[in-house]
Amino acid sequence: MSRRALTLEIKTRARTEFVPLSERIRKEAAALLEGAGILHLYVPHTTAGLCVNEGADPDVAADIARVLDRLAPWNADYRHAEGNAAAHVKSVLVGTSVTVPVRDSKLRLGRWQEIFFCEFDGPRSRAVELRFLPE
Amino acid sequence: MSRRALTLEIKTRARTEFVPLSERIRKEAAALLEGAGILHLYVPHTTAGLCVNEGADPDVAADIARVLDRLAPWNADYRHAEGNAAAHVKSVLVGTSVTVPVRDSKLRLGRWQEIFFCEFDGPRSRAVELRFLPE
Amino acid sequence: MSRRALTLEIKTRARTEFVPLSERIRKEAAALLEGAGILHLYVPHTTAGLCVNEGADPDVAADIARVLDRLAPWNADYRHAEGNAAAHVKSVLVGTSVTVPVRDSKLRLGRWQEIFFCEFDGPRSRAVELRFLPE
Repeated sequence: MSRRALTLEIKTRARTEFVPLSERIRKEAAALLEGAGILHLYVPHTTAGLCVNEGADPDVAADIARVLDRLAPWNADYRHAEGNAAAHVKSVLVGTSVTVPVRDSKLRLGRWQEIFFCEFDGPRSRAVELRFLPE
Repeated sequence: MSRRALTLEIKTRARTEFVPLSERIRKEAAALLEGAGILHLYVPHTTAGLCVNEGADPDVAADIARVLDRLAPWNADYRHAEGNAAAHVKSVLVGTSVTVPVRDSKLRLGRWQEIFFCEFDGPRSRAVELRFLPE
Repeated sequence: MSRRALTLEIKTRARTEFVPLSERIRKEAAALLEGAGILHLYVPHTTAGLCVNEGADPDVAADIARVLDRLAPWNADYRHAEGNAAAHVKSVLVGTSVTVPVRDSKLRLGRWQEIFFCEFDGPRSRAVELRFLPE
């Protein structure tokens, strides 16, 4: 494995769950971040995603999850036979990667920003791949 | 042209079409991917996008396209006079770029993941710009 | 501050506003773009975002803003007590970063593409962090 890449394992506990990652990244990926550049986070899944938004008030993530539920309801007129088409749609709306600036070997998140793993078809065992790209 | 960049030409055949790109990238962009880093894909268009999601069952892409049609119907109360405002909205919801990890000179897509070019105002001749960024 | 990073300050004037950035980037960030790579743009905010779409006809951005208003109405059944939950949701749908190819030290935007700062809870003083990553 590369010195500049790392995989975080995540166990989700509900169908929909926004799991904050920033604290884990600061602890487990500190050796990855050398100087200035960006941290690239990627989920190798098709029914999950990543986003950056407010972490201070957990109601914000709950509101985001509820709007996504309204945009892509779990039960609707989908063709995909596995029953989790809504989770695939949400993954596309939210996206499978985020990138965050790094300076002085530190994540440069805004004051209220948290990096969330977005579970849309849990509970499951998931992975997030981190990779540092220097300037 | 740079040794680390490449443009894929795409001909779409319908107004809405999700065109799988992973196989073409593996064949045509193999020389681009050297060691570890990320592959950056970019569409220089305003009525198309890129996403990563399930490729095994084509019903998944069809479901995603249908939900996007519901969120931004083709005919609605838009101001843009060209008649394709819905395609612009979908492009923003899906995004104009994706980034995928590369390791050992290979794309690190998840087992079920496919990279899709998303046509929202076809049929047209389109381009996707690929660029490799090393760790 | 790094030679390859730069912060743009933005003053927004309305609750919702799409502020074109490409011209400012070409002028103020020219020294950042050296050769080939990508420009990474990031907002450290949780009620704003970034997108790339048509800049020629301002009706396009207005249509995008209006669809987002329909998907996440300002007044709805949100839990977040600050009253701006809709802005958080839109930030997630649009995303907090965009990446644009650079070649020959120039932004490689498509002919109709403009980079927009998306204000969803203005008017406010905002920042966009730019960072160049070489191939």
